[in-house]
Amino acid sequence: MNLLIVGSVAFDTVETPFGKVARALGGTATYGSISASYFASPGIVGVVGSDFDRKSVNILKRRGIDLEGLQVDPTGKTFHWSGCYEGDMNQAITCDTQLNVFESFRPVIPDSYRKAPFVFLGNILPDLQLEVLNQMARPKLVLCDTMNYWIESQPDQLEKVFRRSDVICINDGEALQFCGTSSIPRAARELLKLGARRIIIKLGGYGVQLYGKDSFFALPALPLTNVIDPTGAGDTFAGGFIGRLAKSRRLDENAFRRALATGTVMASYCVQDFSCRKTAGLKPADIDKRLTMLKECVRLP
Amino acid sequence: MNLLIVGSVAFDTVETPFGKVARALGGTATYGSISASYFASPGIVGVVGSDFDRKSVNILKRRGIDLEGLQVDPTGKTFHWSGCYEGDMNQAITCDTQLNVFESFRPVIPDSYRKAPFVFLGNILPDLQLEVLNQMARPKLVLCDTMNYWIESQPDQLEKVFRRSDVICINDGEALQFCGTSSIPRAARELLKLGARRIIIKLGGYGVQLYGKDSFFALPALPLTNVIDPTGAGDTFAGGFIGRLAKSRRLDENAFRRALATGTVMASYCVQDFSCRKTAGLKPADIDKRLTMLKECVRLP
Repeated sequence: MNLLIVGSVAFDTVETPFGKVARALGGTATYGSISASYFASPGIVGVVGSDFDRKSVNILKRRGIDLEGLQVDPTGKTFHWSGCYEGDMNQAITCDTQLNVFESFRPVIPDSYRKAPFVFLGNILPDLQLEVLNQMARPKLVLCDTMNYWIESQPDQLEKVFRRSDVICINDGEALQFCGTSSIPRAARELLKLGARRIIIKLGGYGVQLYGKDSFFALPALPLTNVIDPTGAGDTFAGGFIGRLAKSRRLDENAFRRALATGTVMASYCVQDFSCRKTAGLKPADIDKRLTMLKECVRLP
Repeated sequence: MNLLIVGSVAFDTVETPFGKVARALGGTATYGSISASYFASPGIVGVVGSDFDRKSVNILKRRGIDLEGLQVDPTGKTFHWSGCYEGDMNQAITCDTQLNVFESFRPVIPDSYRKAPFVFLGNILPDLQLEVLNQMARPKLVLCDTMNYWIESQPDQLEKVFRRSDVICINDGEALQFCGTSSIPRAARELLKLGARRIIIKLGGYGVQLYGKDSFFALPALPLTNVIDPTGAGDTFAGGFIGRLAKSRRLDENAFRRALATGTVMASYCVQDFSCRKTAGLKPADIDKRLTMLKECVRLP
């Protein structure tokens, strides 16, 4: 276990122009840990309810994911999200959110996780993200994600999380909203001032940008013509990113760039099927193949 | 003269959050030819009115731009566009358009232009773009641009232009609109079926994509924190792109990629001041410096 991932484990009911799934395995910790499992040894901290089935457990176990930190709350049901996508599928439309056992979730970090050098704080209440950090011995790298809801309702607590993070992963709209600017490069500069080493700006189907104090790097998304369901793409990206970092000898610019490419490739597989159907069953050669493709997509002679 | 550029020559009155200019030199042929002039020998086909002043002529002449094809219509005034930008400045808000002499413009290609190997058809009525092509001896490469207005009102004529173009340059929203899809990669594939060698999809502040039959390449915009006025960025990009192509020995994938980078760099200078103030006075070293910067922005180790 060298990578702690904190976040939701959920059942998702999703409809896109290309099909529908009911109660499919989802959630940040699920997508993130499955993606990271190709490069690191992730352990999950999250909560599920009495309805969490053996089949779902086995999907995670088969990927070697440590589940000691996954609480089972027998008094309720697993977090259930229902949503759909239309048109360019860049924006999810939520139909129903049943937090269930996730509503009263408090992260408890098992002793065996406390020294994990890498931490991915998925999008949960900022106070809970801080509680996680308070239970950890000095991690080497903390990656945090968030969402518009916390930017609006808890900006001060969120800023505390940002100040304790090494990498902030945020989408373009959220970055502009948090910084109160209309320029992405300016928002990234503002966020860097909070102390993070790198800012990742996610641009949905347009790719991803990486800002450092004196560096800028951008990658497009792979030009897929068969996007089926974008649910979990951001978490799959983040999991691949931090998983790859956990494998790097040094955390320098080159390592961050390789990790960004890895996250991009993992996300490209995620969106080509519902749930984690595609990402749970990859071979190393699948990943290498797309890394080579991605490299060619940015080769500037 | 090895590059024909057809399009508007205009005066622009522009207001952005960073300032205002009145009746500044603008228009597709202006922005395009100034940008291209660093790499090729452009000649303009367009029209101006009785108010077109010596100062504006001199800006073009100093860049070595051939003006034999620039008609002067003494019966009216030069095309005048007034607009403003707000927020992220990705979308111009038109306040007033006075077509003036541009309304009855018919492109007449001077004999000395007819054998130009490179042609940039700026955004004008598709029928006029076709008239230009009918007057040309077999050019080596035709680049065309368009806008939503023609996609809505003249889709059939526009398709004829596309079928006779080697490179179609179009922004993301326009590509989706023309192809009736919600996926950019699918739109690009559709457009390629019309016969062009490459499709360029412009993503505004997010950069640009280049699609070939078996290739994909993407470049981010340079991460500028001081964007002053985006007017003319697309035309400046196109001019730099085709100008650089005109300098290439072979029109292969590498040449297209280098040209895309050149266009991106020229556009980065364009947006940092009003009108062509910045792009009209560059030194080759300025361009090389940003090409090196851009290369580092996409270096994937």
